[in-house]
Amino acid sequence: MTAVRDSSNISVDDGTATVKGWVQDVRALGGIAFVTLRDRFGTIQITLPKKKIDPALFEELTKLPRESVVAITGEVKASNQTALGLEIIPSAVEVYSKAATPLPLGVVDKVNVEMDTRLNHRFMDLRKPEIRAIFELKAMMVELIEECVRANGFNQVYTPKINAAGAEGGAELFKIQYFDKPAFLAQSPQLYKQILMSTGLDRVFELGPAFRAELSNTNRHVTEFISFDGEMSWIENEEEVMAMIETIIDHVLTGLKERGKKQLEILGKEIKVPARPYPILTYSECLKMVQDAGLPLKEGDDLGTEGEKIIGDKMAEKGVELYFIAEYPEEAKPFYIMEKDGTPYSFSFDLDYKGQEISSGGQREHRYDKLVARMEKKGLNPADFEFYLEAFRYGMPPHGGWGIGIERLLVKMLDLGNIREAILFPRDPARLTP
Amino acid sequence: MTAVRDSSNISVDDGTATVKGWVQDVRALGGIAFVTLRDRFGTIQITLPKKKIDPALFEELTKLPRESVVAITGEVKASNQTALGLEIIPSAVEVYSKAATPLPLGVVDKVNVEMDTRLNHRFMDLRKPEIRAIFELKAMMVELIEECVRANGFNQVYTPKINAAGAEGGAELFKIQYFDKPAFLAQSPQLYKQILMSTGLDRVFELGPAFRAELSNTNRHVTEFISFDGEMSWIENEEEVMAMIETIIDHVLTGLKERGKKQLEILGKEIKVPARPYPILTYSECLKMVQDAGLPLKEGDDLGTEGEKIIGDKMAEKGVELYFIAEYPEEAKPFYIMEKDGTPYSFSFDLDYKGQEISSGGQREHRYDKLVARMEKKGLNPADFEFYLEAFRYGMPPHGGWGIGIERLLVKMLDLGNIREAILFPRDPARLTP
Repeated sequence: MTAVRDSSNISVDDGTATVKGWVQDVRALGGIAFVTLRDRFGTIQITLPKKKIDPALFEELTKLPRESVVAITGEVKASNQTALGLEIIPSAVEVYSKAATPLPLGVVDKVNVEMDTRLNHRFMDLRKPEIRAIFELKAMMVELIEECVRANGFNQVYTPKINAAGAEGGAELFKIQYFDKPAFLAQSPQLYKQILMSTGLDRVFELGPAFRAELSNTNRHVTEFISFDGEMSWIENEEEVMAMIETIIDHVLTGLKERGKKQLEILGKEIKVPARPYPILTYSECLKMVQDAGLPLKEGDDLGTEGEKIIGDKMAEKGVELYFIAEYPEEAKPFYIMEKDGTPYSFSFDLDYKGQEISSGGQREHRYDKLVARMEKKGLNPADFEFYLEAFRYGMPPHGGWGIGIERLLVKMLDLGNIREAILFPRDPARLTP
Repeated sequence: MTAVRDSSNISVDDGTATVKGWVQDVRALGGIAFVTLRDRFGTIQITLPKKKIDPALFEELTKLPRESVVAITGEVKASNQTALGLEIIPSAVEVYSKAATPLPLGVVDKVNVEMDTRLNHRFMDLRKPEIRAIFELKAMMVELIEECVRANGFNQVYTPKINAAGAEGGAELFKIQYFDKPAFLAQSPQLYKQILMSTGLDRVFELGPAFRAELSNTNRHVTEFISFDGEMSWIENEEEVMAMIETIIDHVLTGLKERGKKQLEILGKEIKVPARPYPILTYSECLKMVQDAGLPLKEGDDLGTEGEKIIGDKMAEKGVELYFIAEYPEEAKPFYIMEKDGTPYSFSFDLDYKGQEISSGGQREHRYDKLVARMEKKGLNPADFEFYLEAFRYGMPPHGGWGIGIERLLVKMLDLGNIREAILFPRDPARLTP
């Protein structure tokens, strides 16, 4: 006898089997009844020919509220009426958990439900195979990212999420009472991964939460997300960082296409793997593109959501989904980005995917004096960053890196429309539970 | 010509090479001088025969402050005086960053330095190969953990670190101002991984930060650590969870022994891989052991640091480093642990490693009414946990899981003596920077 948590592993040769899962549906048609049992891997049909089943068992099984959790033991029989080619004729049931009624949210009912309702009852929403598939793909994505960076000599690190200062000054930080001191939640591991470049651990990556206290209620913003950060020493220029990102994204897209077949099919989605190298636009080219489209931006302005969309549309016309935007004005970039001396530009880039920025990066300023000068130019007080600056006074190699919001990457890959679709339990200004 | 970030990759066949790193040491002996250059992978000798080197270059190289960051280009020559079997006769140098003097901390000097001084200048401390080796082993440990759980069907998840309630009530929580609401930093993903068990995603794991606002200043406590959590559905009992942990720990120890050879050698450490299954002691046996040793504990008491040490010593006498302690009194365990009906015990366990708890786990209470009763018994208000309890009302399978502090595991594995040794930038009541 087999006892499984994976109904798709059952075979007629098993004779008798025990299957465990959620009662998705019960249909009683007089002389015969059917129970659809769902587990993580799919559904299996339990068939109850009234005459052959113990009446008490028949009664119990057909009266079970939908979504109750049970183990059903029975004989496995071949059937050409079911997707698995088999059905189970039950001889015993164990009820682990009887579901209350009515359900707060249907699993199989084809009813449009508001995002808020879904997120309020996320445990039920996640029972839908097409919702679960998103998170199976997210887990695969993390695995693929890690595979690729580890193969390229990056060491995984964990930097503190409780900090004395923000990465870019005071904006958008959540404040914590840290015993008798104020502290802040990390908005990025930026300063720490740079400090690590001065240790000799010359390629590092981190996958961890990042926090932004932004009062934005959009499809693209949440207050907590997973940031995939990388930093590498001994670079000649920012293009080496861009090439590394390309290598990683390519590995992720190629890998998901292959390993995520089942999930992509459930979602009805296809992933396009673009040829490398990805096109590189400069900020100046992009600015012109956006101005030509009628957006009144001027030199030095951030391209913004609107601008990114316009560029995305133009690139889509050429069949391009992934592209870099490089050479941003230094004033539009944080203090740690290196200026391109003698120009108003910087050694920075964004990676955009279908009209949205999913990654930012660049070469960092590793020279102490220039770094301090940039901080002062941005109105920051170097004394607040002493814990960071010290690492630049005693031997810092040239370095660069990136940050990628993994949920944004997933959203664009699957055209999900709302970042909350890619987070199990999202956090935004209005949402703190579940 | 070769340009490398890994000095150990240079060979005499390269002819000319560029090596990049930190100037660890400069020795001038009249007619000849030596510069030791260090990178992530080791050191390489730069030899300067005074007569054969351009005087300006000789002057520049021998005057470089220790720990400056440079690229040195030169001819690779065979040498039987060096570990690599070669030396470089320099023809050019590029100085990326000249180190200030004096250094806040030596890298090669054999001077005893206080832990606090080391942590205050962690970037410099990490330049010591034996410190860096710890974090290389930590990264390998995470990789090995992930390998093993993924192979066993676990899906990686990320649960929110900003929460409306703690996992076990109000103690030890850091409070955040979350817009107009109070919120707390997660002390454990416990409630979320359990909610996920009701979704059908039946095996999940998470690696992420956990926060404890404990005012403890000990070798074992920090306020932020990395928790490795797992949860699995469809278990028969807590022993299935224990077997899974054993599988994981065994994979980690075996893997590190193999892949971490170089780092373990640098640290002068050896890892013992114990035979499976690990011995299982019951709480009652342990209590007796501890009482016999003179500790005045009574039935129901936590074994505590002292008790754990006594048991560790007894087990060490038998040559046992890893062992479970099972069947704790239910009153000593959190509300979500299942009681062993008709006894004062519970379906819980700890995994202890050389006299210290490194993991806790058990079978969870999946039955709604019993779970609420346990909450009330513990003085918690079920209304505060509605976001969690809802997931138990509509079909929750039996499940169990564990939490492992990965730094504690590393500390015991390498006999480090202080948990701060296993964290790049530790956080404790007195330490918020760097």
